[in-house]
Amino acid sequence: MSNNFKISGVVPPVVVPDTPDRKLDVASYERNLNRMIDAGVDGLFVLGSSGEVVFSTDERREEVIRESVRIIDGRVPLLVGIIDTETERVIEQGKRAAALGADALVATAPFYALGGATENEEHFRILHDELDLPIFAYDIPVCVHTKLGWKMLAKLGEEGVLAGVKDSSGDDISFRYLCQANAKAGHPMSVLTGHEIVVDGAYLSGADGSVPGLANVEPEGYVRMWKAAQAGDWATVKAEQDRLNEISHIFDVTSGLQGYAGGVGAFKTALWLMGIFDSNQMPRPVKAMEGANVEAIRTVLAENGLL
Amino acid sequence: MSNNFKISGVVPPVVVPDTPDRKLDVASYERNLNRMIDAGVDGLFVLGSSGEVVFSTDERREEVIRESVRIIDGRVPLLVGIIDTETERVIEQGKRAAALGADALVATAPFYALGGATENEEHFRILHDELDLPIFAYDIPVCVHTKLGWKMLAKLGEEGVLAGVKDSSGDDISFRYLCQANAKAGHPMSVLTGHEIVVDGAYLSGADGSVPGLANVEPEGYVRMWKAAQAGDWATVKAEQDRLNEISHIFDVTSGLQGYAGGVGAFKTALWLMGIFDSNQMPRPVKAMEGANVEAIRTVLAENGLL
Amino acid sequence: MSNNFKISGVVPPVVVPDTPDRKLDVASYERNLNRMIDAGVDGLFVLGSSGEVVFSTDERREEVIRESVRIIDGRVPLLVGIIDTETERVIEQGKRAAALGADALVATAPFYALGGATENEEHFRILHDELDLPIFAYDIPVCVHTKLGWKMLAKLGEEGVLAGVKDSSGDDISFRYLCQANAKAGHPMSVLTGHEIVVDGAYLSGADGSVPGLANVEPEGYVRMWKAAQAGDWATVKAEQDRLNEISHIFDVTSGLQGYAGGVGAFKTALWLMGIFDSNQMPRPVKAMEGANVEAIRTVLAENGLL
Amino acid sequence: MSNNFKISGVVPPVVVPDTPDRKLDVASYERNLNRMIDAGVDGLFVLGSSGEVVFSTDERREEVIRESVRIIDGRVPLLVGIIDTETERVIEQGKRAAALGADALVATAPFYALGGATENEEHFRILHDELDLPIFAYDIPVCVHTKLGWKMLAKLGEEGVLAGVKDSSGDDISFRYLCQANAKAGHPMSVLTGHEIVVDGAYLSGADGSVPGLANVEPEGYVRMWKAAQAGDWATVKAEQDRLNEISHIFDVTSGLQGYAGGVGAFKTALWLMGIFDSNQMPRPVKAMEGANVEAIRTVLAENGLL
Repeated sequence: MSNNFKISGVVPPVVVPDTPDRKLDVASYERNLNRMIDAGVDGLFVLGSSGEVVFSTDERREEVIRESVRIIDGRVPLLVGIIDTETERVIEQGKRAAALGADALVATAPFYALGGATENEEHFRILHDELDLPIFAYDIPVCVHTKLGWKMLAKLGEEGVLAGVKDSSGDDISFRYLCQANAKAGHPMSVLTGHEIVVDGAYLSGADGSVPGLANVEPEGYVRMWKAAQAGDWATVKAEQDRLNEISHIFDVTSGLQGYAGGVGAFKTALWLMGIFDSNQMPRPVKAMEGANVEAIRTVLAENGLL
Repeated sequence: MSNNFKISGVVPPVVVPDTPDRKLDVASYERNLNRMIDAGVDGLFVLGSSGEVVFSTDERREEVIRESVRIIDGRVPLLVGIIDTETERVIEQGKRAAALGADALVATAPFYALGGATENEEHFRILHDELDLPIFAYDIPVCVHTKLGWKMLAKLGEEGVLAGVKDSSGDDISFRYLCQANAKAGHPMSVLTGHEIVVDGAYLSGADGSVPGLANVEPEGYVRMWKAAQAGDWATVKAEQDRLNEISHIFDVTSGLQGYAGGVGAFKTALWLMGIFDSNQMPRPVKAMEGANVEAIRTVLAENGLL
Repeated sequence: MSNNFKISGVVPPVVVPDTPDRKLDVASYERNLNRMIDAGVDGLFVLGSSGEVVFSTDERREEVIRESVRIIDGRVPLLVGIIDTETERVIEQGKRAAALGADALVATAPFYALGGATENEEHFRILHDELDLPIFAYDIPVCVHTKLGWKMLAKLGEEGVLAGVKDSSGDDISFRYLCQANAKAGHPMSVLTGHEIVVDGAYLSGADGSVPGLANVEPEGYVRMWKAAQAGDWATVKAEQDRLNEISHIFDVTSGLQGYAGGVGAFKTALWLMGIFDSNQMPRPVKAMEGANVEAIRTVLAENGLL
Repeated sequence: MSNNFKISGVVPPVVVPDTPDRKLDVASYERNLNRMIDAGVDGLFVLGSSGEVVFSTDERREEVIRESVRIIDGRVPLLVGIIDTETERVIEQGKRAAALGADALVATAPFYALGGATENEEHFRILHDELDLPIFAYDIPVCVHTKLGWKMLAKLGEEGVLAGVKDSSGDDISFRYLCQANAKAGHPMSVLTGHEIVVDGAYLSGADGSVPGLANVEPEGYVRMWKAAQAGDWATVKAEQDRLNEISHIFDVTSGLQGYAGGVGAFKTALWLMGIFDSNQMPRPVKAMEGANVEAIRTVLAENGLL
């Protein structure tokens, strides 16, 4: 696949609503997508880590892609996560996503089995050979427990293997080096940050855009931040980030929850309280937030004018 | 599913041969299974971490189970790994394995998404509710990055949720506590160690058996060790373990390989050199061992009388 | 220093009592040492991780060594921990300990600054060159965050650089390989396990002895276990370990405590409840156990006949 | 100690030159300090992680402080690292540093012994009570293996326990939250980043200054970057950071070196090649860079106009 797909700006990773009995809540999903598109986002990334990809059966993944294609209807590019353990399984996910209408595919390093840089590089080369859509490398060591080296990513970009990188590594040094190397090589890749709390720093580092989960809750702010960054108005960029970070305390005002339950759970609970989702149900084996945790999130939303 | 499935003794995790073009090499596979059954193993565990489970598409997994059922033909129990990221996907794997003839199912903690003890416990409870076969918890933090606490495992055993534990945690303290707690509870679970280098210590700790990958290479030794342990002949147990550990240096005489490539790669290369496998091919994106690494393994095998 | 110091059997790491105002409680300390010597231990290890070494100023360390030499009075060998960050500082600790009468010195890998195997090996070679006492390598990655490779340890033993190893790595595979390599080399080193919960497995692996913190609480059991192991009576070894492990639940019946506070805190609280220590005071910044945690430990001791 | 010490701008962590026989090379040290002060830095931080603190005996630490006080002669504030394992030892380091003329003290969380947030907080409270100089918390989990939570740091700042934070955590999210919380509290603390590759992002986050090791090699760039940030000229800030990052490749052009040997080793080798240091000697057990690694660094310096 030739590497001429470019994307920049705000590309939220889409949070997926469940009905109480854990079906895809299509009506809520449609509201969420339309709201972000109306706010001016530049693309949508479905079946990412926040998009329940690893909780979803293949059938459910297909439903999510199909509904996304239908709802988006070409208004913005659709990036689809093809997250699975090792190469052959990822290829299968990629072929299904391509057949259903994805515009680009987002794959992590292999996980579960232990490997290293050699296997990671080979993995992306094979994906590029086997799949007919642009490939984004999704660098998310907190989930896959391996960090993609910036030198390898830059090389794969220069060779046309990768169309871009979605960086959720939490390693802003590596990200900075990647942006500089990509710029030196003539900017072949779209380099996006998933680091929603410091998007401003990533833009200053040279990022082409962001993939902020929090944009499900407040898309307008991320859109404004991107426009301000494009205009070189860094005071506005920073002020907008500061403001969004106040909303992000939905992550840390709850208690007794770990990882996904507290993170994506906060998004779902906020969207439910805001009337965009009809439920804050979570996929098994995760429990939906209840009681004081819901109230704590309600308070954050109220304090930030979101209710 | 009632929890009255018991297994003890040696239950090797089966290494899977690939043809050079990465199809399942059924003839080699049959030789490997028959050789272990003839040596007297007490069960076989397919689609474990060493059994390429995460490298295998669902179709390939089905082929492995189907061929295993055909070859084993009821001679020993068949445990099948149903390794996938989160609960709904694991349930699907479990239903397929059950339909194809597995005797028991082996599931890890959820992985990729971040969770905690609450999610782990709920996960096994759901698997028990949804699947009609005995469930073994597969404790393998090196792959799933979460450790199953022995208190939780013992409780789930006592309640009949788990039929057993396959411990590959590398934590012999936790294993010891688990064995003692299981014994105190009337021994509801079969507790197996995957720790092939210190099976002797695990037997002394009270393990019901072992799941040693190295038994693909040398099954007789592990069978003798188990019989000696049953007879209380600990000098023989230790001597046999010492001898097997010399063979295990196939893991550390190679260079330039990490994780799966050096571990399962060593098994495949040894089985190929010993004439049991027709190739040492590895699944993508892993490369098969070559050159000096193959020769280093050949030397270990020769020094230990296996060629 | 020539490497002809040998030690085997039970060598408890000595827990240190504090007065309420955090002075060394010499009377309690003397009771604790004499009790262990009377029980038949084969040596004592002071200023180990459980011996408050990193909490102690140099002056306090000197006081501990001086009192230990006085109390022990040659009845058993005295091993002294010379724990400090990097080589020059460790040498200073070693010279002071040697001058005060230590029989052997126990040093970890360097810590805080990031290094690797090259620096670890060089470190022990320098210690051997600069210090006039036998050197034991203390393998404790949970504290120093680097694992000493068994091949390097075996090599340093064979070359006479190391007199022994005190293994608190929690890696029983590496320990097993080390014991086998040391035996093959003619057994130049004394290899001791710090793994108090699975000393039985370590003895079966070929350990020369153990360094169990729990022997401060119940020294007789560890002495009996060692004698049984020497006699090849593995049923007794296992039964004794099982019994000691029941006592070890003093570690896991408390709540709200982490690391040192719950581990060494449990030892101190048990020794206080048993009348050997006059207080369960902890060094700053750690708080002494109180209330329900003390009662939980009292219950474990009572159930095991130690009150 | 009241918390009215404020510092902002560029505060390099001073790299320390050794003579070939590993004495402090006072002449080289003086050149290095004067060069940074002449370039306009706003303070100097000695005995930090890059300043060989954990390699230095107490005597050597005293020599470094004494020479620093003499050379600096009041031209800029002197921050001194009082790095040691646990509270009592850190207090001793702090009292010595205060007596020798430090203006502020920089302490990490306790390390080696396992603790948690409770112990970390208590530790800083005790240091504040016992020492008569402003205390900076040095957040460096890569060395101490514990992360200081931003909520705790902000609270300790608000209560006057901490005068500031030196953040080398690599966690830019936590840093951002800390800056925002400190601003909301009326800005009681000086919050400095040690993240030399993304100082620009840290300034945009609201940092009061930076502690960049690379400023030993190129102080003028960091001084210009700070002035541009103060002026709101973010294009210049970014351009300067981009340029400095090219120099920072002295860290990644070498091979066969880990951690300190490759990091501080690169600084020392650069300063030696630039004629500021008379040797690139390293403290034991670390070896000085040689051969191709030296040449690789020379090339980077030459390409960036530093030779």
